[in-house]
Amino acid sequence: MTYIERLHHRIKLTGNAVCVGLDPRWESLPTEIRDSAESRPLDPPSSWAVAYREFCMRVINVVAPLVPVVKPQVAFFEQCGPAGMLALRDVIRHARQQGLIVIADAKRGDIGSTAEAYADAWLAGEDPDAATWGADALTVNPYLGADTLEPFVKTAVARQAGLYVLVRTSNPGAARFQDVSDAGGTLFQHVADVVTELSSRSRGEGNANLTNGGYGSIGAVVGATYPGELIELRQRMAGVPFLIPGYGAQGGTAADVRAALDKQGLGAVINSSRGIIFAIDREPYRSRFQPHQWEAAVEQATRDMIADLQAT
Amino acid sequence: MTYIERLHHRIKLTGNAVCVGLDPRWESLPTEIRDSAESRPLDPPSSWAVAYREFCMRVINVVAPLVPVVKPQVAFFEQCGPAGMLALRDVIRHARQQGLIVIADAKRGDIGSTAEAYADAWLAGEDPDAATWGADALTVNPYLGADTLEPFVKTAVARQAGLYVLVRTSNPGAARFQDVSDAGGTLFQHVADVVTELSSRSRGEGNANLTNGGYGSIGAVVGATYPGELIELRQRMAGVPFLIPGYGAQGGTAADVRAALDKQGLGAVINSSRGIIFAIDREPYRSRFQPHQWEAAVEQATRDMIADLQAT
Repeated sequence: MTYIERLHHRIKLTGNAVCVGLDPRWESLPTEIRDSAESRPLDPPSSWAVAYREFCMRVINVVAPLVPVVKPQVAFFEQCGPAGMLALRDVIRHARQQGLIVIADAKRGDIGSTAEAYADAWLAGEDPDAATWGADALTVNPYLGADTLEPFVKTAVARQAGLYVLVRTSNPGAARFQDVSDAGGTLFQHVADVVTELSSRSRGEGNANLTNGGYGSIGAVVGATYPGELIELRQRMAGVPFLIPGYGAQGGTAADVRAALDKQGLGAVINSSRGIIFAIDREPYRSRFQPHQWEAAVEQATRDMIADLQAT
Repeated sequence: MTYIERLHHRIKLTGNAVCVGLDPRWESLPTEIRDSAESRPLDPPSSWAVAYREFCMRVINVVAPLVPVVKPQVAFFEQCGPAGMLALRDVIRHARQQGLIVIADAKRGDIGSTAEAYADAWLAGEDPDAATWGADALTVNPYLGADTLEPFVKTAVARQAGLYVLVRTSNPGAARFQDVSDAGGTLFQHVADVVTELSSRSRGEGNANLTNGGYGSIGAVVGATYPGELIELRQRMAGVPFLIPGYGAQGGTAADVRAALDKQGLGAVINSSRGIIFAIDREPYRSRFQPHQWEAAVEQATRDMIADLQAT
């Protein structure tokens, strides 16, 4: 099955398009996990890796029956050195064994044969063992040029993996470069058009509409924090699946992301990281659960997000 | 010492501004190294990692007395999984022990606290043990916005490390997005202006001109394959050190990069990867050396590049 077919299968199975971001910041981890990791005879980066592995595994066990997708943020694992990268591999493997789709959020990008190496490293696609890091899909940065996206697309097509190219990010300063505009539109619109073309080409001929709702496996990252642009890009990028960060802790609302989903609830996955995995740190969960019940808070926050998106 | 002070110290010591790119492609490695790695009871990604480690160590031993800088390409190590990332750490450590400046070519970029994690992972600065990957400097991608460069700059300043922000890359399709232009200039000129401001701010007050030739530690990647833009950017970006890819195998000539160096030979480092590390695969070195003399070919190609740059 192609990436988009696997993704849609999971979305239909769970009845929602929630993506849980695995961003294991050390200072926010449950005390029991930090204490346990620090009790081992390891230097700090390696003990962090042990803690990130356990924390993410336990989050995965809670959310796997509820949501279609998880998105590990590679930076936090890379910060822990080789031990962290080993933990990341275990986390991705475990998530896939639990039936989850895994988007590796690495934002890689480089030229020619270097891009090929990154694609080969991350994009496992249907067979988790086809790449060393075993992900279903990868986030990619387009700054170096349209030609530098081609090796990623080629590997994604060959392995039935997915890609999400950064188009409009969710940070406050995103406009500084992404909104530079000429007669043809803004930079992010230019990137959007290239991604739409790559996506269209990778879908190939045939009954795309019958098998995957009209969407391909080459997608785009579009932030929820600029709802006007999200609507505009949804119309501009026919058949391109979105990965939408910015819901929840960053300020995006269910109403903001509604425009990105079609009647069938397809067309995008909506990510929340801190809002779910560290739910115990904020209301209403902090008052309802004891600190050691952090997994119950993760479950409730996940259910609440699903309900919030379904209510709109 | 700040990054730029350490870099200039090495440039003066060696009398040149050559950067040797460590891009260890498996299919191009010397047969003896591949055979030795494959004789071990390891799965392919791990045996590649063993070979990359040995190959890079031996290249470092050859070039350390000759050039100021090496630039490992992170993608090739990442392709080998956790074993590859462990090999990369060893390679960086060995290069620094040999006195070389190490630029980790990872092209990382992300928002807020995620950017902080990447900066913390890579930017060791003066003390190689201050970050898990131990580099003097890191390449960074600006697409997500000027605000996303700030955490990298903050860590670089705190640890006396360096940064090279992608401005104009050396690939054929670089113009597709980097040349989108409004009334204020092209995208790459906008990025150039932001980098110049960050660089200027990070230099701070005082006698910058007396200690480091007027340059700061926040730099830019500008390809040698667009010589007109290289000249224009050199004038536009006062005090910003350049990392220039594209010399040699990619087509950039010594005359093309001349404009980026000032009278003292400062202002840029010029990278060559394949042209040096796989010199044995091309003329005149293929005819002059036997395959097992690949290290002699590396040395001769390095000396030839130094002479080529000095002759202009």
